[in-house]
Amino acid sequence: MINQQLINPRSIVVIGGSNDTTKPGGKVLKNLLEHHFSGDVYVTNPKEDEIQGIRCYRNPGDLPDCDLAILAIAARFCPETVELLARKKNTRAFIILSAGFHEESEAGALLEQQIVDTINSVNGCLIGPNCIGVMNHHHTSVFTTPIPKLDPKGIDFISGSGATAVFIMESAMPKGLSFSSVYSVGNSAQMGVEEVLQYLDESFDPETSSKVKLLYVESINKPDLLLKHASSLIRKGCRIAAIKSGSSSAGSRAASSHTGALASSDSAVDALFRKAGIVRVYGREELAAVASVFMHKPLTGKNIAIITHAGGPAVMLTDALSNNGLEVPHIESPELLAKLLPGSSVANPIDFLATGTAGNLGDIIDFCDNKFDNIDAMAVIFGSPGLTEVYDVYKLLDEKMKTCRKPIYPVLPSVINVKNEIEYFLSLGRINFPDEVVFGNALAKVYNTPAPAAPAEHPAVDITAIRRVVDEAKSGYLAPDKVQQLLDAAGIPRAGEAVVTSREEAVDAAGKLGYPVVMKVVGPVHKSDVGGVVLNVKDAETASREFDRMINIKDTTAILLQPMLSGTQIFTGAKYEPKFGHMILCGLGGIFIEVLKDVQSSLSPVSAAEASEMIKSLKSYKIIQGVRGQEGVNETAFADAIVRLSALCEAAPEITEMDINPLLGNAKGVVAVDARIRIEK
Amino acid sequence: MINQQLINPRSIVVIGGSNDTTKPGGKVLKNLLEHHFSGDVYVTNPKEDEIQGIRCYRNPGDLPDCDLAILAIAARFCPETVELLARKKNTRAFIILSAGFHEESEAGALLEQQIVDTINSVNGCLIGPNCIGVMNHHHTSVFTTPIPKLDPKGIDFISGSGATAVFIMESAMPKGLSFSSVYSVGNSAQMGVEEVLQYLDESFDPETSSKVKLLYVESINKPDLLLKHASSLIRKGCRIAAIKSGSSSAGSRAASSHTGALASSDSAVDALFRKAGIVRVYGREELAAVASVFMHKPLTGKNIAIITHAGGPAVMLTDALSNNGLEVPHIESPELLAKLLPGSSVANPIDFLATGTAGNLGDIIDFCDNKFDNIDAMAVIFGSPGLTEVYDVYKLLDEKMKTCRKPIYPVLPSVINVKNEIEYFLSLGRINFPDEVVFGNALAKVYNTPAPAAPAEHPAVDITAIRRVVDEAKSGYLAPDKVQQLLDAAGIPRAGEAVVTSREEAVDAAGKLGYPVVMKVVGPVHKSDVGGVVLNVKDAETASREFDRMINIKDTTAILLQPMLSGTQIFTGAKYEPKFGHMILCGLGGIFIEVLKDVQSSLSPVSAAEASEMIKSLKSYKIIQGVRGQEGVNETAFADAIVRLSALCEAAPEITEMDINPLLGNAKGVVAVDARIRIEK
Repeated sequence: MINQQLINPRSIVVIGGSNDTTKPGGKVLKNLLEHHFSGDVYVTNPKEDEIQGIRCYRNPGDLPDCDLAILAIAARFCPETVELLARKKNTRAFIILSAGFHEESEAGALLEQQIVDTINSVNGCLIGPNCIGVMNHHHTSVFTTPIPKLDPKGIDFISGSGATAVFIMESAMPKGLSFSSVYSVGNSAQMGVEEVLQYLDESFDPETSSKVKLLYVESINKPDLLLKHASSLIRKGCRIAAIKSGSSSAGSRAASSHTGALASSDSAVDALFRKAGIVRVYGREELAAVASVFMHKPLTGKNIAIITHAGGPAVMLTDALSNNGLEVPHIESPELLAKLLPGSSVANPIDFLATGTAGNLGDIIDFCDNKFDNIDAMAVIFGSPGLTEVYDVYKLLDEKMKTCRKPIYPVLPSVINVKNEIEYFLSLGRINFPDEVVFGNALAKVYNTPAPAAPAEHPAVDITAIRRVVDEAKSGYLAPDKVQQLLDAAGIPRAGEAVVTSREEAVDAAGKLGYPVVMKVVGPVHKSDVGGVVLNVKDAETASREFDRMINIKDTTAILLQPMLSGTQIFTGAKYEPKFGHMILCGLGGIFIEVLKDVQSSLSPVSAAEASEMIKSLKSYKIIQGVRGQEGVNETAFADAIVRLSALCEAAPEITEMDINPLLGNAKGVVAVDARIRIEK
Repeated sequence: MINQQLINPRSIVVIGGSNDTTKPGGKVLKNLLEHHFSGDVYVTNPKEDEIQGIRCYRNPGDLPDCDLAILAIAARFCPETVELLARKKNTRAFIILSAGFHEESEAGALLEQQIVDTINSVNGCLIGPNCIGVMNHHHTSVFTTPIPKLDPKGIDFISGSGATAVFIMESAMPKGLSFSSVYSVGNSAQMGVEEVLQYLDESFDPETSSKVKLLYVESINKPDLLLKHASSLIRKGCRIAAIKSGSSSAGSRAASSHTGALASSDSAVDALFRKAGIVRVYGREELAAVASVFMHKPLTGKNIAIITHAGGPAVMLTDALSNNGLEVPHIESPELLAKLLPGSSVANPIDFLATGTAGNLGDIIDFCDNKFDNIDAMAVIFGSPGLTEVYDVYKLLDEKMKTCRKPIYPVLPSVINVKNEIEYFLSLGRINFPDEVVFGNALAKVYNTPAPAAPAEHPAVDITAIRRVVDEAKSGYLAPDKVQQLLDAAGIPRAGEAVVTSREEAVDAAGKLGYPVVMKVVGPVHKSDVGGVVLNVKDAETASREFDRMINIKDTTAILLQPMLSGTQIFTGAKYEPKFGHMILCGLGGIFIEVLKDVQSSLSPVSAAEASEMIKSLKSYKIIQGVRGQEGVNETAFADAIVRLSALCEAAPEITEMDINPLLGNAKGVVAVDARIRIEK
């Protein structure tokens, strides 16, 4: 676990330090000596007596006790050094910069495991190997630049890639963003992104901890841990954004059912982030913009006042906000208008003209903060054509940001004309959004990210019956009668049906179910494609004739009969995603999943509230509500079927894929008409 | 028209110059004197004898002849000064910086018209009023900073907003973008964005003219002119991107038909840009990124090699490209791999490691350019963790960009660590993409923008018959028989039908059409909602009973009978958009337009190729092709119906809204089942 020796060490040793600051061992020492670390710094190197002005220990055995060790030596020398430091020097925190471990070879993996075992045995903490290090306001144990402004109220940033962490900081710093801590986890041999987040959660102090966390991850190894601690932090008032790269590669995969093809592992990431309340972003600039939004007061409503002295950017921002679900409501205020220059407009965007003054801006902000109840936040766009200085405006903006109840977002586009004034503004601890559209998209994305999902409470399902079916089954698709038993055990309503293998049985069963009936082949996967579905069979003669035709269709082993039911074709399904568990999906049936891919998903366990939200988020939701005189679907019953399917998956993790398609829905309820379940053991 | 006096004047006078460079009249003179204008500069001011070191004329009447005049005096003094200069001083180009014209008042509009009349009478040219001016590599007649690098091979940029033009340059310049010309058109009293573009088209010289044009427009006043000259320039090898702001405000409007609600004026802008081949962007950063793509060799295929020394950005770029229709194909080359450091990967992304050298990069680029046939372009991502300088890498990159046949896009993320090296790279005339995802999205957007549409050749329609119906009609919805006459005249196949007002007529007509028939109320707009549509009426008894019920439905004036046809419900429609002409739409019928808004549009006249492209671009296109054993729609017939509807609108511009919904389509063809046409005179 991450410990105080890593966070706030009394002493740090660089193992393999160097006078050559183009080498990691030289640069990390330089960074430590030149920045704000107030404890003791030691360095070792078998060939030197002094490095960068401090005494060098040729032999680590000669070192005094030391809290944190940074290793910048070849991989093969690391295990013995770690052993020495852990056993003899009371070192309890390690940062290994060196590469050459499990990312490179089997032999490297063994070295890595040896190191982890040693560190675990003394209850120590390891960051890396193969990383750029760690920094916070106590120390800068990284071998890279830039060193950002380190401030306990800045961003906590955890990165799965060292170089990417550097580039992200280079995107963030020019906007004025500061960092509370930066962790580059490298190979995550002991501490990965998830474990660092766990530490930030468990050590969270509402008074002193930063409330903004950023993550860069290339693979999510412990989705459960991420979900638990991200949602916990967010419930404590934090805000988290993350890049999970590799969203496309896993996109398409061979899968035998609709649900399988739709539920790629990337959509599992989407579902995980949504459930946790994490804002998902896709690039460095977007991450910096979302982080900048996070560093302002939370937005509590969707109504934004845009205050500007230049029309164009205000129109572009209006577009970005209102095309993404936020609003720029109309304002009427003759009282405010009277305070501004002739020709100004307060209709929102509030335009106080190229000749508008800092005083005008102050009046506008005061009105927005105190008098306009239909305004939740302000975006102030103020650049310069280069004629005069604008220090007075940016000073006023800073002051108003201190006193106003509502968030104020500064968009200062003139990064050339008033470069100095923007630098002054940032020096006050402020952040700039240089592009109004990038800002608008980021603000909307933050606003539109749902809060973490509440824990799911599942309705009672017959676990004994479920386990009996699953325990008896072999890997593969379950037989129709077994599928029916699972649906019954889960409490999911289904249509009466019969499976027959002779013409006589067919006629008999159809009579019992009641005409009209539907007949379907059992066996072929895509039944419609092979002419294996016949609707509205109205009499014994037709049933008899169709049986004879259908039983001869390739792969057909039997014929299924069901009563002809009416309703909207909907579907729900599940797919097991390794590590993530079951993705639960829902949507409209037929062409809506085939062609339009209109599905919503969530990670099991799914609560009724989540299921309801999934239904409402479908593009085709209006059809579920009922459109143009068509009867809608009972949403409570649909949501209940989704929740019960989730409960079924929880009771039977062996289910790898499952479809209820179609589920027929009308105003009274839903009925499963066809279902397939595949299990794997 | 724009003339040589504006582009390359021998002499320029600033009317209302000043020593105070915080005023436009002072700053524009300063800009002229400090930059590269090689002709004579004069200045007038009634109160001064010398301004900024040059002689000042107190009276404009004392000036020598002068090609270009820049006016920075109060609006009310402008007409007489323009008159004097035009009549007495042979001035043929005017830039009026001053505000206070038609944007402010009726009186201002009169002043503006007076000025335009004077300038037109001498065949002169006017930019403004209420603008920041014009600059190119001959002169910098603007009162703002920054002055970008002005280079005949840079960007031609036309802006409808002066402040926005400044902010756009401030976004573009740090990336290394240079400008060939910048026009701020202000009130567009004589020359608007469209006229400047016309000039750029008509004066285009394939050897010397810039091939990149950017536009910022807030309203499109002359869509025809924009379409004509933008597509002409693009056919000559130019590339054009534009921001049209105000995309959201016009979004929703009251309209009485499906087509009306779907065809907002902003979608007319989309359709116009698509037809012209203009890349539509929504913000300054995006515009700068697209312009940066334009400044490189055109991309001729979709396969990109990503070359990097850092994994993360390469993965994010892979996502951005492959999620937007480009590809990062697998590469195998043991030969290249052997030239790189151990641990490198050539699989694409090609990762030559943090320790990779300029020499390695050169080898990789050579292989991509010469040996990898499945690669059309390269993105090179190369930053720095700050240990060493990277001049050698950026120098090599510049050299390879000169010699390679395939485009190379440089992504240099370390804007802090290797700031100096990036500045060096830009000083070589290069451009940097600081963010890989912003770059990837821009590249994909450029690649996915279609070429300008070829001129439409319409099939012959019976114009005499069309005009007869339209000329006789009053404003409003046409009666069903008139609608039928127009469809027949346009050659759009329709179902046989009868309109009846008595039970006896209904039974008679149904017998003639042949059972089963469909019965529909005439009168109500949303027929299904009021129970006004009955399908599959199989006999006289039912026809008789349904007639009695339906004729009593509110607003019903008659009952329409049609044969019951089978096929997929599709639709096509038109809506007249002021200035833009007719938007032609198509899609699937029913819930696809109601709920999913899955429509495609184009501006009339629509060619068969455009109609076919519209059909193929529908999200539900697979349904038109035929899915899961369902018969598809004859695409040629569908496209022909769209083209004929366009031809009908061309012959009858009085049509303001028109729907053929549903059009029933099957493998044999399409048949209009229901249509409404509204005309306005």
